[in-house]
Amino acid sequence: MPPVSVDLNADLGEGFGVWTLGDDEAMLDIVTSANVACGFHAGDPAGLLRVCRAAAGRGVRIGAQVSYRDLAGFGRRFIDVDPAELTAEVIYQIGALSALAAAAGTAVSYVKPHGALYNTIVTHEPQARAVAAAVHAVNPALPVLGLAGSVFFEQARGHGLRTVAEAFADRAYRPDGQLVSRREPGAVLHDPAEIAARVLTMITAGRVTAADGTDIAISAESVCVHGDSPGAVRIASAVRDRLVGAGVRPAPFS
Amino acid sequence: MPPVSVDLNADLGEGFGVWTLGDDEAMLDIVTSANVACGFHAGDPAGLLRVCRAAAGRGVRIGAQVSYRDLAGFGRRFIDVDPAELTAEVIYQIGALSALAAAAGTAVSYVKPHGALYNTIVTHEPQARAVAAAVHAVNPALPVLGLAGSVFFEQARGHGLRTVAEAFADRAYRPDGQLVSRREPGAVLHDPAEIAARVLTMITAGRVTAADGTDIAISAESVCVHGDSPGAVRIASAVRDRLVGAGVRPAPFS
Amino acid sequence: MPPVSVDLNADLGEGFGVWTLGDDEAMLDIVTSANVACGFHAGDPAGLLRVCRAAAGRGVRIGAQVSYRDLAGFGRRFIDVDPAELTAEVIYQIGALSALAAAAGTAVSYVKPHGALYNTIVTHEPQARAVAAAVHAVNPALPVLGLAGSVFFEQARGHGLRTVAEAFADRAYRPDGQLVSRREPGAVLHDPAEIAARVLTMITAGRVTAADGTDIAISAESVCVHGDSPGAVRIASAVRDRLVGAGVRPAPFS
Amino acid sequence: MPPVSVDLNADLGEGFGVWTLGDDEAMLDIVTSANVACGFHAGDPAGLLRVCRAAAGRGVRIGAQVSYRDLAGFGRRFIDVDPAELTAEVIYQIGALSALAAAAGTAVSYVKPHGALYNTIVTHEPQARAVAAAVHAVNPALPVLGLAGSVFFEQARGHGLRTVAEAFADRAYRPDGQLVSRREPGAVLHDPAEIAARVLTMITAGRVTAADGTDIAISAESVCVHGDSPGAVRIASAVRDRLVGAGVRPAPFS
Repeated sequence: MPPVSVDLNADLGEGFGVWTLGDDEAMLDIVTSANVACGFHAGDPAGLLRVCRAAAGRGVRIGAQVSYRDLAGFGRRFIDVDPAELTAEVIYQIGALSALAAAAGTAVSYVKPHGALYNTIVTHEPQARAVAAAVHAVNPALPVLGLAGSVFFEQARGHGLRTVAEAFADRAYRPDGQLVSRREPGAVLHDPAEIAARVLTMITAGRVTAADGTDIAISAESVCVHGDSPGAVRIASAVRDRLVGAGVRPAPFS
Repeated sequence: MPPVSVDLNADLGEGFGVWTLGDDEAMLDIVTSANVACGFHAGDPAGLLRVCRAAAGRGVRIGAQVSYRDLAGFGRRFIDVDPAELTAEVIYQIGALSALAAAAGTAVSYVKPHGALYNTIVTHEPQARAVAAAVHAVNPALPVLGLAGSVFFEQARGHGLRTVAEAFADRAYRPDGQLVSRREPGAVLHDPAEIAARVLTMITAGRVTAADGTDIAISAESVCVHGDSPGAVRIASAVRDRLVGAGVRPAPFS
Repeated sequence: MPPVSVDLNADLGEGFGVWTLGDDEAMLDIVTSANVACGFHAGDPAGLLRVCRAAAGRGVRIGAQVSYRDLAGFGRRFIDVDPAELTAEVIYQIGALSALAAAAGTAVSYVKPHGALYNTIVTHEPQARAVAAAVHAVNPALPVLGLAGSVFFEQARGHGLRTVAEAFADRAYRPDGQLVSRREPGAVLHDPAEIAARVLTMITAGRVTAADGTDIAISAESVCVHGDSPGAVRIASAVRDRLVGAGVRPAPFS
Repeated sequence: MPPVSVDLNADLGEGFGVWTLGDDEAMLDIVTSANVACGFHAGDPAGLLRVCRAAAGRGVRIGAQVSYRDLAGFGRRFIDVDPAELTAEVIYQIGALSALAAAAGTAVSYVKPHGALYNTIVTHEPQARAVAAAVHAVNPALPVLGLAGSVFFEQARGHGLRTVAEAFADRAYRPDGQLVSRREPGAVLHDPAEIAARVLTMITAGRVTAADGTDIAISAESVCVHGDSPGAVRIASAVRDRLVGAGVRPAPFS
């Protein structure tokens, strides 16, 4: 029997000062979990407080989207940071967002690494351990959102953390279950209807068609959608509508 | 009857990355309250975690030394920041340090504004209210350390916060009880024995000799000492020794 | 006889990393002078190099839009920076942009302070002198763009710099020739046709209707237009078209 | 016949705001070339202007010590920055320091990459090319200081730049002429007399004793000394005295 609900997550609060990115208000009407920036790749405190309040007002759950310290690169560049420093930086970020979330009447309910840090700790053991140690130090009950099969998940479970696997709505998969690199053609899907149908199959049938046409198994408690462009918001909306139409209720992972 | 104890506070954790400032280890053997930087005027997360651990190991209490966002100016320049943004920035800083303190097995027990923010909110009502609102939003039970008679203390009490007045060990006072400006000669005292005797009189007799030679009343639950130079550490040490020798026990304010 | 040409200037290069602001390409088809950010309130080096190349390709002249160091506040907050530090910061910014401009085959031809610095040095003598001294130190032949009657212009002339007065296309004027504060209603005009007609009168008749309905004299070698929103680009375009239609040629100030 | 002169270079201007590092004044009495920070790993504009003036006053030549954008990590962490962005960042830094140097009555005479960037472009071709392209774009007549045999030197020569090889006074060499990694024991030498004698042999005999005891050939036009601690200044001083005593004149590379 297919699941009756699935979590939809997206990155929010990714402006900085005068600069905005994406349509946070629109996305908060779509997703059930908001990965809110913590000031290291994006997010000034006033903007973060605003998005925390908006999320709280809609009952959308907040996660801490922790990152390398890299405003200029939006956290998208690998930095060979010392693991002990990374642990402290992740603790700092989760704490900062937690206080803003509390001031907004809500709380940080999970942690999701951002950008290059997310990608790095799929395989980079010292940094993966550093992030897991940071989450554990803040609150061992905080789940982490990430990639099934990653070194990060190994480390997280080693620290006693609950891991929540996510699938990507608009990304092509390789036959081995990994994502097709963004540098390759066809890595990112663009058609809302196709993407929505694809996500529905992921969730209800537990499979997805890989780039070579074969069907592979996929298991995800959350689906990552994007909201950093008008087109992205339309896709996210289509995904939600398709799921709802098929009887799958968008709801935060348990 | 004189008080049997008094709090000694100093600024700590004020390095950044490769750069150090002062001798945190030495100061932690002297003070009873450590005003720890929060990353906005100084303090990288790894350095802050280190000082939190060192403070926890000695039973020294930690306060959040919140500041304008100004690494280049060490928080010593007035910034005409919007009050709503300032509130969010102060919440962010307290939260960040709180998580590091918790990871070190301790907690943030009070808040003390730093540098230009400290001086500004002696009289600047919108920013004073913004800081008080931030502390209240994080935890209404957190006391604030500052200047008796300041607009900040008015605002803090208006928000239901406990205010803790501090005296300055090495600063000259005007007859009206305010500090002599650093731009005037004689604003800062340098002789350890003189300073130590002065602090003892402040605490046991509740008075201090102002710059014009008159004795004025002073009431303080905490005394601020500096530690950013070898000379400063010697002064702080002399103050502590003199107090202890006279039967006044250094202890955190209640 | 009316002037046959007038300079149109706008702020460009004001994104940072992943964040964009305004439509630089569209504005470069409208203006004759581009006030390019220098990295202190906005502008990452790669983005600045891009806008320098685009300006060079269209023969649009480049000016250095120098600012307080304040990415988080977009240079819009007064900072009580030490004048000697401000001088060094302005030299640094002009030099940085000059090298990027040279790499793009062009050069920095003037300097225009940004945001809160612009406003501050209308009256703040030490900071005004600091900026003038910086421009003089880099190149005494560089003109400065600013407000007629400002302390900055006094200081600039005292340093032997050429001053170029600008008018604001979309701002209301007071009877004394100063701008109506943005905090007051009616401070900013929005109708493209009205604004365009107003600028034409400024340039050809040397006068503008103040907020109280009286006509006042105005003398400007350059007109500042904005480009940070689709509406702003439409207004800038209307201004240019109206001037051209009336035989006033947009051209860089001499 | 041994050379009658050799260049001595050191890193200077590496404080930031209130924080200092090393004794710039002492080092300027020892070295003939000052690698001055450019604000990306260290160096606020006022401090940089100060060191430029001090260097100019002593006739010490200035080089631009360009870096990754990384104040928190002092430029010591690899960052996977896009080469086109790196080129723009290096242009920006050279330009900024050039303007400060000009204001101090001197000029940037060469470029030396700092820290992790220095190490990375020994082998990382895209970043090596990016740095070489930046130097070329600013001024093809600017020499670059670096490691003989590096990919950076290949790229620099490919861009028509003059390359100036340096030796390290206090570092152990491998038999293949590369430096022993800092992670290995014995990588850094500490005895001033031993280091001074070693440098003299490098310069007069063109050889150095490697970590395994074998003598290897070394050819350097400049010797890098450190000044970030009292001990380092003593070593640098010993090196200079030993060279002078043996008739080798410290002088900028031609």
